Amino acid sequence: MAGKKNESDPNAKKKLEDFGGEILSEIERKDNPKFATVVRSKSNIIYDKKGGFLTVGNQKEERNFINTGQAKRFMQTVAIAAKCHKFIDENLHTTIRGLYYQLKYSLGEDVDENIFNEQAESNPLIEDLEAALSIKRESLNLNANRKGVLAGNLKVMDTFGGEKLEIDASKQGRSGWAIPSDVDNDIEFVDVKAKSVLVVEKDALWQRLNEDGLWKKENMILISPQGQAARGTRRLIRKLADIGLPVYVFNDGDAWGWYIYWTIKTGSMNLAYIGKEIATPEAKFLGVTMSDVERYDFLQKMTMKATEVDLKRAQEMLDYPWINMHKEWVNELKKVIKTKTKIEQDTLQGPRLTFVDDYIKDKIKNEDFLP
Amino acid sequence: MAGKKNESDPNAKKKLEDFGGEILSEIERKDNPKFATVVRSKSNIIYDKKGGFLTVGNQKEERNFINTGQAKRFMQTVAIAAKCHKFIDENLHTTIRGLYYQLKYSLGEDVDENIFNEQAESNPLIEDLEAALSIKRESLNLNANRKGVLAGNLKVMDTFGGEKLEIDASKQGRSGWAIPSDVDNDIEFVDVKAKSVLVVEKDALWQRLNEDGLWKKENMILISPQGQAARGTRRLIRKLADIGLPVYVFNDGDAWGWYIYWTIKTGSMNLAYIGKEIATPEAKFLGVTMSDVERYDFLQKMTMKATEVDLKRAQEMLDYPWINMHKEWVNELKKVIKTKTKIEQDTLQGPRLTFVDDYIKDKIKNEDFLP
Repeated sequence: MAGKKNESDPNAKKKLEDFGGEILSEIERKDNPKFATVVRSKSNIIYDKKGGFLTVGNQKEERNFINTGQAKRFMQTVAIAAKCHKFIDENLHTTIRGLYYQLKYSLGEDVDENIFNEQAESNPLIEDLEAALSIKRESLNLNANRKGVLAGNLKVMDTFGGEKLEIDASKQGRSGWAIPSDVDNDIEFVDVKAKSVLVVEKDALWQRLNEDGLWKKENMILISPQGQAARGTRRLIRKLADIGLPVYVFNDGDAWGWYIYWTIKTGSMNLAYIGKEIATPEAKFLGVTMSDVERYDFLQKMTMKATEVDLKRAQEMLDYPWINMHKEWVNELKKVIKTKTKIEQDTLQGPRLTFVDDYIKDKIKNEDFLP
Repeated sequence: MAGKKNESDPNAKKKLEDFGGEILSEIERKDNPKFATVVRSKSNIIYDKKGGFLTVGNQKEERNFINTGQAKRFMQTVAIAAKCHKFIDENLHTTIRGLYYQLKYSLGEDVDENIFNEQAESNPLIEDLEAALSIKRESLNLNANRKGVLAGNLKVMDTFGGEKLEIDASKQGRSGWAIPSDVDNDIEFVDVKAKSVLVVEKDALWQRLNEDGLWKKENMILISPQGQAARGTRRLIRKLADIGLPVYVFNDGDAWGWYIYWTIKTGSMNLAYIGKEIATPEAKFLGVTMSDVERYDFLQKMTMKATEVDLKRAQEMLDYPWINMHKEWVNELKKVIKTKTKIEQDTLQGPRLTFVDDYIKDKIKNEDFLP
């Protein structure tokens, strides 16, 4: 399968310039400088039924300069935009923490005013800017935390440090390819021979399956988010789904495992403003499930007592319309609440280390998933 | 520089067989089966002045089978040894959690007895075995958590999944090479052209420096442990020091940053029983220091209030003989306690993103380190 072209916004710089240009025009017209951003609080987060992901609704908020409650934040946002514009010009990346320290050092070329006292001030303004400009922070040269690892028949062209580097994810040995923060800009899938994607919550299990060469035998792309999936890993899974690969997720059967799955599938509340780009509604939950415990005798002695957190989370999930619309999930969560037990994916190494491989193959062969 | 040969113990299997053989002989002789391990509690942890690392003293403990307080643990330890022997035979790896579930599934070929109720029971017994046999768990085919990333002029031969894969750490682009759990068995440095090692606490800074190609310009190996260094990363740093590369560590100037440094340098209490293999006493602390704050004006507005944890930690460190033997560290820690401030490495992106590169180059040029 041919790789798909870079989908990210190549116009980040232009968008920032338009943003600044508009503010300048308003000043010249003696208008109150302003811009509109999207409300990101819970009241404006909706589940897009047709799309199958969490997104933001139509509520907008205006930020005005001439407003005693907003002047400082307005100025700060403009300073952030100016810094990001500079980073793009320099072709250098940093993090929101690096950005914060640049702002603390100096607001701009000639302004030595310390208007930021802590990073908690700058973070929401970066989100304002992302939402106002419909652009992800990665395109503003701000790296998010990265985490996650990948192996499979996939080649990636990473244009980095003035070189074009072809990374062959089938030749990374025990390590795998570390999934970057930004998988849109200057990075491209050049050759995707794999036919499906298996996401495995825990790195320990990923290493187990990588050692067995499961991804070779089944021609899969084997990913571990190494816990909760980072933005880059979520975006990568989305991009693999975009080129038509089915996505299976293999997690613990507990509060954390379910949460990781639903974050991959529908996105999360706090990133709903970029929901469409990082959610993979096509994803299926391969296991571990309470039905597995009924099917495999040995799992019965491997369950653990569900904690208060697990039970509370299961109850909350039953209230989410995007979860309780699936009778299979209602059934699963009710079993957890009834039996007060949970089950880890590591248990599938119990009978023999490679049992987990067969478990996965059976699940896929029988299409035995939760939606 | 030529790569050094694999230093790990190739005799793990033989050691396990001798361990079992000895117990068998004792049974045949109608003796009480027993083995000796090393006391790992605080009373037996010492600082090896000559070597410069934390290690265990001469206190041994005997584990006996015919002893009501020890019989269960003795049996459990033998079961662990048997499982690890099987993993080595199968040439498959798992984690201590996977091992626990195998023990829970069945003690051995014909024993369907559930003698483990929680992983907290098996973990210290694995350490008993490591200490008794003078062998690291990685050689028992037990992967520890892995974390850490590397870029530089270094090639590694990873014999994995029946293939010999040469990994060129100078061709990993934005991602870097993910440092494995086990850097001794079936993995070898084949070509180390780099002349020094720079360890950078935070992955965000690692990405910054990787983007700037600092490791190319200075012919360094650039490592981030991504926070506290995992066993594999500590061992890798030790191995790079073994082939003569100087090791510089660049961390936050706070409780956590100091702790990460000292763990790399002298090892940690809980891994003192393998201290010699994972400590790098040659390591130097490059920064960030309170002297930096005095030297660079802009850092003065970038310090943060030290927390209670930072101050408590600084005070504790002043009591450790392996720290207070260095007047430079006494000076540093006293400044922290006096000013009640701390400083992050991210601040060095304040004036411009590449300032941090110059900071590092200056430090190395002027040999301006803490010991």
